[in-house]
Amino acid sequence: MNSQQLIDNTVKKITCLQVPHQQSLDSVVQRQSQLTKPKNSLGKLEGLAEFIAGVAAVPNPTLHRKTIVVAAADHGVTEEGVSAYPQEVTKQMVKNFLQGGAAINVLADNFKIEVIVIDAGINISTPIDGPLIQANLGRGTNNIALGPAMSYAKATDAIARGITIFLESHMDSPTNIIGLGEMGIGNTTSAAALISAIGRRKPSAVVGWGTGINPSQFKQKVAVIEQALEVNKDAINAAHLIDSPGKAISFLAALGGFEIGVLTGIALGAAANRVPIVIDGVISATAVLLANLVTPELKKFTIPSHLSPEPGHKIVLDLLGSGDPMLDLQMRLGEGSGAAIAINLCDIACRLLNDMATFAEADVSTIKPVAKIEEHK
Amino acid sequence: MNSQQLIDNTVKKITCLQVPHQQSLDSVVQRQSQLTKPKNSLGKLEGLAEFIAGVAAVPNPTLHRKTIVVAAADHGVTEEGVSAYPQEVTKQMVKNFLQGGAAINVLADNFKIEVIVIDAGINISTPIDGPLIQANLGRGTNNIALGPAMSYAKATDAIARGITIFLESHMDSPTNIIGLGEMGIGNTTSAAALISAIGRRKPSAVVGWGTGINPSQFKQKVAVIEQALEVNKDAINAAHLIDSPGKAISFLAALGGFEIGVLTGIALGAAANRVPIVIDGVISATAVLLANLVTPELKKFTIPSHLSPEPGHKIVLDLLGSGDPMLDLQMRLGEGSGAAIAINLCDIACRLLNDMATFAEADVSTIKPVAKIEEHK
Repeated sequence: MNSQQLIDNTVKKITCLQVPHQQSLDSVVQRQSQLTKPKNSLGKLEGLAEFIAGVAAVPNPTLHRKTIVVAAADHGVTEEGVSAYPQEVTKQMVKNFLQGGAAINVLADNFKIEVIVIDAGINISTPIDGPLIQANLGRGTNNIALGPAMSYAKATDAIARGITIFLESHMDSPTNIIGLGEMGIGNTTSAAALISAIGRRKPSAVVGWGTGINPSQFKQKVAVIEQALEVNKDAINAAHLIDSPGKAISFLAALGGFEIGVLTGIALGAAANRVPIVIDGVISATAVLLANLVTPELKKFTIPSHLSPEPGHKIVLDLLGSGDPMLDLQMRLGEGSGAAIAINLCDIACRLLNDMATFAEADVSTIKPVAKIEEHK
Repeated sequence: MNSQQLIDNTVKKITCLQVPHQQSLDSVVQRQSQLTKPKNSLGKLEGLAEFIAGVAAVPNPTLHRKTIVVAAADHGVTEEGVSAYPQEVTKQMVKNFLQGGAAINVLADNFKIEVIVIDAGINISTPIDGPLIQANLGRGTNNIALGPAMSYAKATDAIARGITIFLESHMDSPTNIIGLGEMGIGNTTSAAALISAIGRRKPSAVVGWGTGINPSQFKQKVAVIEQALEVNKDAINAAHLIDSPGKAISFLAALGGFEIGVLTGIALGAAANRVPIVIDGVISATAVLLANLVTPELKKFTIPSHLSPEPGHKIVLDLLGSGDPMLDLQMRLGEGSGAAIAINLCDIACRLLNDMATFAEADVSTIKPVAKIEEHK
């Protein structure tokens, strides 16, 4: 099966699923009402348990295996001076992930989440040693300020590779939830360009401070994205007119990046297998936006985790129509760090559903009849 | 030492502490800047680690022991029909806590938090069996719609008992963080009355839906609180004019409840021992408001966890000036459930501080000099 066929087949699988799965959802709502707590008093945690049951189509969801994928790649646009860090930090941070020294490692260790690191296209001449998935699509994308990030065929491959990676990992040992993380110096520029192009927003409204640039770098970053949109405008205009999945592939080809394309594929693969998808920051949200262009059913499988201070993050979640994120911790790290915290909340939501006692089990009185209250008046 | 002396001594201890402890705080800020992440990119988690270090006066805080106290008591005002549940649910839920079936048990088990349950004044004729602290101050408070909740001496004892319980538990095995939880049918009425009285707000602006009352019960609840404020107005007016700690004791005596007073004491005991205090919902926040009336230094030791939909919760946090809570999960359960989730975030904040690699350890390049960026322009 070639890349295009794999994407088409995955979309077909997703569109055939009924989400939420009503019977499972009803079962959760029913059980929540019997647990020893006032109705709805666990707030969004109850909603999370319902959501997961509805996606997974199980009445008593348990997150046996929790996974975060961290896709890493480089961006040619870094030569325009859009990031506070040099490009080699992508490779260095991937090594840090493999050695367990990064924030996502500490979070994942504590929350018992497995981290899968993917080289989606880091600028290296020899593969990085260690337990990571080798899926290098090139030594970073081309500089989007000068032309397209990659060819249409390469963009198709990036998404297909994401699907394949998900399927192989899931076949190996099924995961019950997946978070989308990334690492790539320059990728907030690529994400902001995609959000501007897809959502027809001015780059100045979308661009944020990334890893911590200064005001003159900020102006430079806006100018670079404006240039990228101008240079690629024919491709972008054409993309707006074509149908999915060509639309998403065309945007990805124009503005990158490899890790975004791979995450788009991971999201599609997860949805096709009824695995809830936890969005992290602005870059993973952009990947999900592309996946939702591939098939508009996709957003039904996604949970926004946190809101970062990058202005594009709120815009992309609004474009996606995914609802409000559950956390506002002012995090802007990426790596799946916000998703990790949200997955932990999903886990606890399922445990509350499964492990709390019912009124009957604990011999606790339920709500008293209104008549009894009236007596007191 | 009598109750009054214990409170006075505890206040003296608190006022002698330098919070935040500048050297510890500086040390954390310094280390955070060396960890492999852009500066401040962990957002509020970095602030949490700094806060805990500043309260505990240690440069590398580790939460070895995490504790939530759940103080339970009954409220005579339930005879006015202010709650959706009958009074005996207080006792039944305490038994549920002891059997491990409540939400707080599931949360605490998963987050490795120890739960200490206190009978502060449940309406029972024989003590509840099991691993709970017997500190029963009476078979529920008096009905505040008809007179004071308790005597001044009893209110003094309630606070002193909280201090003693904290000290004994802390001496037994020092805790590194404490969350304040509660259980008591009718206690949102007591808390709303206290907030109205202390903050001089209209009850209709403070009252919420509690455990899930209907609109006619809501009107009834507002009317009952208005009546309680009217009946106790001389005591309330007098309380506004006197100095701490008499001020807090007088408010507590007028409007209750026993569990609120015990939590006030727990907070004072914790502060005197440099233990960060995590506020849960509107009732525990009210206890902290009272503790902050006892000594205005108290709030420097507190962390607001979540915001519940009870309108009084935001008002009491504003009165306290404690800043925004880190979570908005629309939870309104009490039991320390929101505090448990926040304590887990505090734990992870400390682990990130201690366990992440530095740039030097991981051989990751730090921010590149601006000169190098300028070259690219």
